[in-house]
Amino acid sequence: MLILLTNDDGIRAPGLVAMYRELVRMGEVHVVAPETVQSATGHGITLSAPLLTNQVTVEDTFTGTSVDGRPADCVKLAVAKILPRQPDLVISGINSGANVGINVIYSGTVAAAIEAAFLGLPSIAVSLYLRNEIPIDYARTAGLAMKVIRQILEGGLKGGQVVSVNIPPLRAGEPPTGVKVVRQCTAAWNDTYDERIDPRGRPYYWNNTIFRLGATEEDTDVAALREGYITVTPLQFDLTHYPMLREWSDREWRI
Amino acid sequence: MLILLTNDDGIRAPGLVAMYRELVRMGEVHVVAPETVQSATGHGITLSAPLLTNQVTVEDTFTGTSVDGRPADCVKLAVAKILPRQPDLVISGINSGANVGINVIYSGTVAAAIEAAFLGLPSIAVSLYLRNEIPIDYARTAGLAMKVIRQILEGGLKGGQVVSVNIPPLRAGEPPTGVKVVRQCTAAWNDTYDERIDPRGRPYYWNNTIFRLGATEEDTDVAALREGYITVTPLQFDLTHYPMLREWSDREWRI
Repeated sequence: MLILLTNDDGIRAPGLVAMYRELVRMGEVHVVAPETVQSATGHGITLSAPLLTNQVTVEDTFTGTSVDGRPADCVKLAVAKILPRQPDLVISGINSGANVGINVIYSGTVAAAIEAAFLGLPSIAVSLYLRNEIPIDYARTAGLAMKVIRQILEGGLKGGQVVSVNIPPLRAGEPPTGVKVVRQCTAAWNDTYDERIDPRGRPYYWNNTIFRLGATEEDTDVAALREGYITVTPLQFDLTHYPMLREWSDREWRI
Repeated sequence: MLILLTNDDGIRAPGLVAMYRELVRMGEVHVVAPETVQSATGHGITLSAPLLTNQVTVEDTFTGTSVDGRPADCVKLAVAKILPRQPDLVISGINSGANVGINVIYSGTVAAAIEAAFLGLPSIAVSLYLRNEIPIDYARTAGLAMKVIRQILEGGLKGGQVVSVNIPPLRAGEPPTGVKVVRQCTAAWNDTYDERIDPRGRPYYWNNTIFRLGATEEDTDVAALREGYITVTPLQFDLTHYPMLREWSDREWRI
């Protein structure tokens, strides 16, 4: 089994290293990941500039290709040029931070997985919900993610299908509440900005929104993750709003 | 009527200026747009760096706020800090290039419109399909876009709803074939990369894919735009794949 591993936190991120150590038991893992942190870069791609690459050895664990680009660039380039053949599975993560609710749209981790699905590959994004008071344990997180990944594959994940998995923060010995298949919460953030003055007297702004998993409907990723579940959300990349499409199809237009 | 106008080609882009000249007949237009070109940046946002802003006067037509950030940042910041009140409508464009098919996901123009919809506002993205052999006429494109925008508003565009409009390239005097409400084509690109060697002997890559509107099913944005229609595609930001969600809901999971 040939597995492409990527992320948005950069090729040296501890979440990626931990995921590698688990995945390598399942197949041949190739790492192609961003050179630098690409959090919240969404589904950007690089067309007007070249993509520089380097061979990088990380923690004596793997040698992979770092790409001076976006997560989605890494997947495109890996599939088109770097891997010896089409991968059987693409894994993106483990992201340092949850990718639930509206964050799914901003996430480079999820964008990489969606890009793989565009290209007809089965893919899974993995993210860890961080809470200040709970120490981060990527090795355990990767072990939990691996159990879920194996079950997703056993259930039959087809080329073009993409799933986002989020792992709750757990204290040592504390088990997750369970695994729940849930929809994406679409409640809006309430963005706030600090307004400051630069040394030349001009205003600038800094997003100071604190992203808490807030109140939400019961059947969403946000609610389930907050309750300690590992969440599994199948994603799509057809952005068409079909109810509106059907409603608008009969309209007459003047030009 | 208070209108926020933004784009991804930057505040000085001729497509934005042409759109401004039309929109100003309909209401009070505030321009908050990226300082620099942000094509294909997708739905990135800026959290770990400040957003610098400037007051910019463009072509003696308007004075707006340029933001050293992404299209989605412009919408967030405009709504949170810059506009005197919540806008009644958000327009993103006119983008220099079509945003149909898979490009919808990469598009900063569409990301800005989707961001506005997150925030509960009605919003419309406008893009122009460019073809080398047909001269670009933004003034005419904006006039056509305006006709469609007025009809979308007359039909009732609610807060949180977002529509992508694409205008075909037209020779002088040539009318569009019509207006068509169509779904997003989800066929994959066939990405190709040039492989080159840098001055220090290391390989680098450059995406050289030529984005043609290729063969596709009849009822999609790609097909309709190629046939000379103005396309109207209602979009969503719930990425949940509901058929998969229902199919997977009854699975038993082991942890």
